[in-house]
Amino acid sequence: MSPDIEVLIQKFSRLPGLGPRSARRIVIHLIQHNEEILEPMLLGLSKVHDNVKVCPICGNIDTFQEVCSICADSSRRNDLICVVESVTDLWAIERTSCFKGYYHVLKGLLSSISGHGPEVLLLDKLSNRCKKNDVKEIIIALSATVEGQTTDHYIKNYFKETQVKISSLAHGIPMGGELDYLDDGTLFTAFSARK
Amino acid sequence: MSPDIEVLIQKFSRLPGLGPRSARRIVIHLIQHNEEILEPMLLGLSKVHDNVKVCPICGNIDTFQEVCSICADSSRRNDLICVVESVTDLWAIERTSCFKGYYHVLKGLLSSISGHGPEVLLLDKLSNRCKKNDVKEIIIALSATVEGQTTDHYIKNYFKETQVKISSLAHGIPMGGELDYLDDGTLFTAFSARK
Repeated sequence: MSPDIEVLIQKFSRLPGLGPRSARRIVIHLIQHNEEILEPMLLGLSKVHDNVKVCPICGNIDTFQEVCSICADSSRRNDLICVVESVTDLWAIERTSCFKGYYHVLKGLLSSISGHGPEVLLLDKLSNRCKKNDVKEIIIALSATVEGQTTDHYIKNYFKETQVKISSLAHGIPMGGELDYLDDGTLFTAFSARK
Repeated sequence: MSPDIEVLIQKFSRLPGLGPRSARRIVIHLIQHNEEILEPMLLGLSKVHDNVKVCPICGNIDTFQEVCSICADSSRRNDLICVVESVTDLWAIERTSCFKGYYHVLKGLLSSISGHGPEVLLLDKLSNRCKKNDVKEIIIALSATVEGQTTDHYIKNYFKETQVKISSLAHGIPMGGELDYLDDGTLFTAFSARK
């Protein structure tokens, strides 16, 4: 095999969710469809490479001049900030169109295993935004994992002394979920949070 | 989401083995690791795009001037040709170092569903190579699927009248395979091919 191809397969195999086998399949596919797939892919990648940046206000990823399209959208509610773990979570919430405030994207969750301390939460920045824009409510939308819930508690504790209201997403039975198939933790949470 | 990113995610999601979700994860990963991953990836892809071609003799994919590194290797046995379905199969055989002849890569297998007729087998080319290089044996190394075995029979039939010996890879119990877990077809084949 040509070293160029080998190097490319290695690079692909380090992408999330891919291994050596799937990377090989993808690279072969790209080479066999040079004009239809490889060329447009190259173009798309270099466009993204040249134009896409991280928003200095919320941490969203977008093509923009000064701030991302969400932070630049003045029709959104100025007094609501939603805290999310990653840009994919932000996009997932945007797809539902259920939230019309602004975002704060963390650089990671508190985790002793990954060595992430409170600095990844960028809480200084969030606190400054709250003061500057007179934010009324922070909605914490983190995963229901140990790291997510630890981070949730930490942020709540950080804003305890302030006037800002802090809420978290509800836990319970997912829509379409059957009781019989739920794990004990979910069922227990759904019972205690009944209304 | 920026249209550039959306277009790139769409392109990735059409690669084999990927869907919209995994494509999104990969694109985010690329953007978040701009310098360490996206830039080398761009470089690797454009190198492969510029340099890699399909060998006019065997159909292998490689970087070369006139013929691929396998066809250019004169230390290989000139009288052996191995027929494989794809370049990945060729590479799999090369990794075992068990075969020291040349290859013939098909453009697909006979398949009424995909509409592949005998023209994808490039048998004229194979037949010409056999005459030119006085090939003694053609080894057919195709998958043990319906399409693979149909193609195997077709190639055997095509060379029936010639002096070239035709063989196929053995079928039977895979190394490390336990009898109890084998399907009936494999067990049946292993019994009838006992030696």
